[in-house]
Amino acid sequence: MRPVAILGIGQTKIDEHWDKSLKELAGEAAFEALKDAGIERADSLFVGNMLSPLIDRQNQLGAHLADWIGMWGAEATKIEAACGSGAAAFRAGLTAVAAGEAESALVVGVEKMTARAGREVTSALATAADADYEVEQGVSFVGLNALVMRRYMHEHGWKHADFAPFSINAHANAMHNPFARLRQRITAEQFEKSSMVATPINLLDASPIGDGAAAAILVPAEKLTGRRIVVAGSASATDTIAVHSRRDPLFLSAAYASSKQAYAQAGIDAADVDVFELHDAFSIMAALSLEACGFAERGQGPRLGLDGQIQPKGRVPVCTRGGLKARGHPVGATGMYQIVEVVQQLRGECGETQVDGAEIGLAQNIGGSGATILTHILRLET
Amino acid sequence: MRPVAILGIGQTKIDEHWDKSLKELAGEAAFEALKDAGIERADSLFVGNMLSPLIDRQNQLGAHLADWIGMWGAEATKIEAACGSGAAAFRAGLTAVAAGEAESALVVGVEKMTARAGREVTSALATAADADYEVEQGVSFVGLNALVMRRYMHEHGWKHADFAPFSINAHANAMHNPFARLRQRITAEQFEKSSMVATPINLLDASPIGDGAAAAILVPAEKLTGRRIVVAGSASATDTIAVHSRRDPLFLSAAYASSKQAYAQAGIDAADVDVFELHDAFSIMAALSLEACGFAERGQGPRLGLDGQIQPKGRVPVCTRGGLKARGHPVGATGMYQIVEVVQQLRGECGETQVDGAEIGLAQNIGGSGATILTHILRLET
Repeated sequence: MRPVAILGIGQTKIDEHWDKSLKELAGEAAFEALKDAGIERADSLFVGNMLSPLIDRQNQLGAHLADWIGMWGAEATKIEAACGSGAAAFRAGLTAVAAGEAESALVVGVEKMTARAGREVTSALATAADADYEVEQGVSFVGLNALVMRRYMHEHGWKHADFAPFSINAHANAMHNPFARLRQRITAEQFEKSSMVATPINLLDASPIGDGAAAAILVPAEKLTGRRIVVAGSASATDTIAVHSRRDPLFLSAAYASSKQAYAQAGIDAADVDVFELHDAFSIMAALSLEACGFAERGQGPRLGLDGQIQPKGRVPVCTRGGLKARGHPVGATGMYQIVEVVQQLRGECGETQVDGAEIGLAQNIGGSGATILTHILRLET
Repeated sequence: MRPVAILGIGQTKIDEHWDKSLKELAGEAAFEALKDAGIERADSLFVGNMLSPLIDRQNQLGAHLADWIGMWGAEATKIEAACGSGAAAFRAGLTAVAAGEAESALVVGVEKMTARAGREVTSALATAADADYEVEQGVSFVGLNALVMRRYMHEHGWKHADFAPFSINAHANAMHNPFARLRQRITAEQFEKSSMVATPINLLDASPIGDGAAAAILVPAEKLTGRRIVVAGSASATDTIAVHSRRDPLFLSAAYASSKQAYAQAGIDAADVDVFELHDAFSIMAALSLEACGFAERGQGPRLGLDGQIQPKGRVPVCTRGGLKARGHPVGATGMYQIVEVVQQLRGECGETQVDGAEIGLAQNIGGSGATILTHILRLET
């Protein structure tokens, strides 16, 4: 298996793109990535998407987007792992290039969500949970996360306000990201007073949906000389789909397993990570991810925020481009936004939120309430 | 990239399984495959499925089925390429094992379709076509194939009755396959008199939907000694998603490209193929596949049937277990049924429809009206 490098990246702003179709969004990110890579086309296409069958009544996005992008004849396929679809597509493209099945892969994560009524989107998002044993009981996706957050606060003695630093950091960083959806600062007071969604999760605990696409070009690392960004670790793991089936609903076992495996591949541990783009769909998920990946003791995730260690100049910078919370969460595209953002950090392109001397970045994408978790480690080689 | 072998196979009967859920069907095929392989679990799971988000409101089938099957913690992902989802999942599992990302892969194709009203299923199947430029105009999936068949008859001077041998052969072979949905013979007279669906496609030109699952276990070939079935060729190609966008709507360019590439990998040509499990969703597709893969001249596909060469004892045996037409077409599972059936032929387990001395088998799975086409070549090594 040969090492793989990232040759180019592209992304659209996350927004309510009512004037652009799903394929136009995907094309915009794809053409940016091709341009950034300095190539005209890739051998193969891997698409990450969750909701297109439900929202656009369009399946077979692989062939559909290959057609639109002008990759006529190329291998093309779609991968779906709920909100983990983006990273799952990245891993499929990575494996194809590593195996020599393709000399280059274009990976695109794309989602278009805002043209439908909120109720319809909430129902579509619930397909990430267990239809028989969770959704059938009337629980929504935010409802599941609310149950987890409530239990966590009870077990570990945290107040709701203790989660504020996650959202405040995300919003502060998004101010400097032209592709982010919510580019405004928030205060601790606003965090506590925002509208309730599903107690204890309020509006500022939750990431906004959005329309957007992000893309990357993968090639064999041996083709690049000089400074290059390689994929040093890639792993995927699963947990039970229903939260109630887990021995410990407060432990992201698939984050633990996949990060452990990726650390081993890269020959590093958590302390070596310079930047961590984590999956803060809800503030509770940020805490749980930090714990499962070795950055905090069990039950102590919020401490990192309260101690000021998660900002770009802190010990464990997270969500440096706004995270899901403020950059936005176009579900099947999110995993690719994380990859793109880690590349931007390793290239030193992040301006105000640049992590000084970043050489190793972690991107972790989560499907469902922790059921599918993919961890990727990117490394700058000079 | 290391060679990969098929260690075990499993399948359910294709039927109206109103008493079994999608996960129960998938589990049944998976456990059969594990038992056949003589192992207790696989490292990784790749699921091929098209309609579960629409019909069952269930996404994230990778984690969902890993949970159900008892593969706790394992990597698991879902691949969707419309009716080509099964083979696309097989290719993903193959690539993972070939790349050394997994030491074993369980691939399951599964679909549950019959519990919904026909209108709803027809609408769901139309998501394989172009939502903006085909479905929006009111054309159904069978309608698209009817337009292609009509044009083919016009261009090449065939009568509808000339397609009868494809369906007659499929039904005759299904008589001997306990897993087939339609186990009854049909005559040329019945073929001509059956109910019209979308002229010129009548009921006996069209494959029936169904509920079912088929599975295989992939391992590195080096782990097996003695007789073994290896994957000698694997390729995937695409064409425009909309039929009207093609320079020649009567040529399956993605079948041509993927079969050419797979032949080259295996070091064979069409004349070396002993059995061909093709994608006869409609009788016209059988003719077009035979032509694109080098078994007949352009416009001469039906000749093979009329000359009696497609039966198990003929020169180009196709649909030896009933094909999509009579075994049934649970769309996302079909590609895996084809793989399972080729393995059965190479093992010599097909009784009345056994192809004598079969050593090389071709399985070709099609998504949409030829938009995604995957070709696999399996070879018996002794």
